[in-house]
Amino acid sequence: MRNKPWAKDYLAEHDDLMVTAPEALKGNWESRFPTNQPLYVEIGTGKGQFIVEMARQHPERNFIGIEIQMSVIAVALKKVVASELTNIQMVHTDGEAVNTLFSAGEVAGLYLNFSDPWPKSRHAKRRLTSPVFLAHYQDVLAPDGQLQFKTDNRGLFEYSLQSLNNFSMVFDGVWLDLHQATDGVEDIQTEYEQKFSAKGPIYQVIAHFPKQA
Amino acid sequence: MRNKPWAKDYLAEHDDLMVTAPEALKGNWESRFPTNQPLYVEIGTGKGQFIVEMARQHPERNFIGIEIQMSVIAVALKKVVASELTNIQMVHTDGEAVNTLFSAGEVAGLYLNFSDPWPKSRHAKRRLTSPVFLAHYQDVLAPDGQLQFKTDNRGLFEYSLQSLNNFSMVFDGVWLDLHQATDGVEDIQTEYEQKFSAKGPIYQVIAHFPKQA
Ligand SMILES: C[S@@+](CC[C@H](N)C(=O)[O-])C[C@H]1O[C@@H](n2cnc3c(N)ncnc32)[C@H](O)[C@@H]1O
Ligand SMILES: C[S@@+](CC[C@H](N)C(=O)[O-])C[C@H]1O[C@@H](n2cnc3c(N)ncnc32)[C@H](O)[C@@H]1O
Repeated sequence: MRNKPWAKDYLAEHDDLMVTAPEALKGNWESRFPTNQPLYVEIGTGKGQFIVEMARQHPERNFIGIEIQMSVIAVALKKVVASELTNIQMVHTDGEAVNTLFSAGEVAGLYLNFSDPWPKSRHAKRRLTSPVFLAHYQDVLAPDGQLQFKTDNRGLFEYSLQSLNNFSMVFDGVWLDLHQATDGVEDIQTEYEQKFSAKGPIYQVIAHFPKQA
Repeated sequence: MRNKPWAKDYLAEHDDLMVTAPEALKGNWESRFPTNQPLYVEIGTGKGQFIVEMARQHPERNFIGIEIQMSVIAVALKKVVASELTNIQMVHTDGEAVNTLFSAGEVAGLYLNFSDPWPKSRHAKRRLTSPVFLAHYQDVLAPDGQLQFKTDNRGLFEYSLQSLNNFSMVFDGVWLDLHQATDGVEDIQTEYEQKFSAKGPIYQVIAHFPKQA
């Protein structure tokens, strides 16, 4: 996305919805929400359609959207502001740092939607389903908390199935053409999903980490 | 497939290639082959194209084709006879019984190709990747021996990825469109594969069982 000169000021003006010092809230995120209820985190929120719609449909949950690009999170923030929802907070940072933002078990569920594919093997470590990321997710997810990942990118999904499996994650469900699913699985669409689903199938996996020994 | 009246006699005439009392060979399968070399088993061999071509390309391996339908294995047997290969033996039985045919670690690798999908949940136990089958495969596979499964059936593949994962199998590779793969993976086509690959992607997973504690 093109740089948005208004983004920085816009973020600063909305520090009720944008968390500026997220590490300080570790273990204490309920202080940012009117209601103390389970916390769901999306990494790579993009333009925010998914998290806003999720928050609207799930008032019994709190949501945090993490996005690394300022111009992109500014667009998402506009949607959050317009929604008037009070169960979303936004964080402008690298999702790899989730373990510095949340305490053990503080996160009830994690969403990754259409994460950047990083197709070259030498960039595999940047994929949001690579082992270092998974280790950080494990640090913060509650027991039985689920990681939910969807993408249209075949190579990334092949990699991710193997990566999650090799990390001993337990699959709760696998969909190889989510939009053809007949099992009634919830599918709240993202901007990328709407743009790319005509080109081929949307893949999804839901998995949890094994019980700690 | 239509019943083939000639099948029974044809099988009986070729008892050099058709094993009539396979349980008796448990732990001693090398006695059926000119060379003592690693043993690979295909369950649901169908009309035999895959196993004959595998055996041709891999003279350093012995192969056993297991097929439950007499009329079908008779067609496969014709191909084995015509091939003049000595590293294939055929067994007319239910693949669920592999643990009665082979001793622990006797099988170096297992192939499942385009297994019957059994789409209804109440028939899930009949799927060749269901837990009871996997337990029997584990009984006979050598340490690090791989299970290789390919299919065009999306529902069966979704089920199988989850079933193998939930059984603690370790994925060595996942392909969501085998015929588009660029990693040089070997693909010896089966009759079903040639017939159905135009209709959609071919899926494949290769996995092994975890080290026994
Ligand atoms: C392909 S877009 C998908 C956006 C949105 N989830 C959707 O489906 O429409 C990937 C997004 O992830 C963000 N991203 C990539 N790596 C990230 C990281 N390490 N932490 C946070 N966000 C990241 C990118 O800036 C981009 O906005
Ligand atoms: C859909 S066909 C595929 C045949 C062949 N593998 C191919 O790809 O062309 C499945 C085959 O598996 C056989 N089969 C099904 N269940 C079996 C079992 N439990 N043991 C052995 N063979 C079985 C069927 O008789 C059938 O020939």
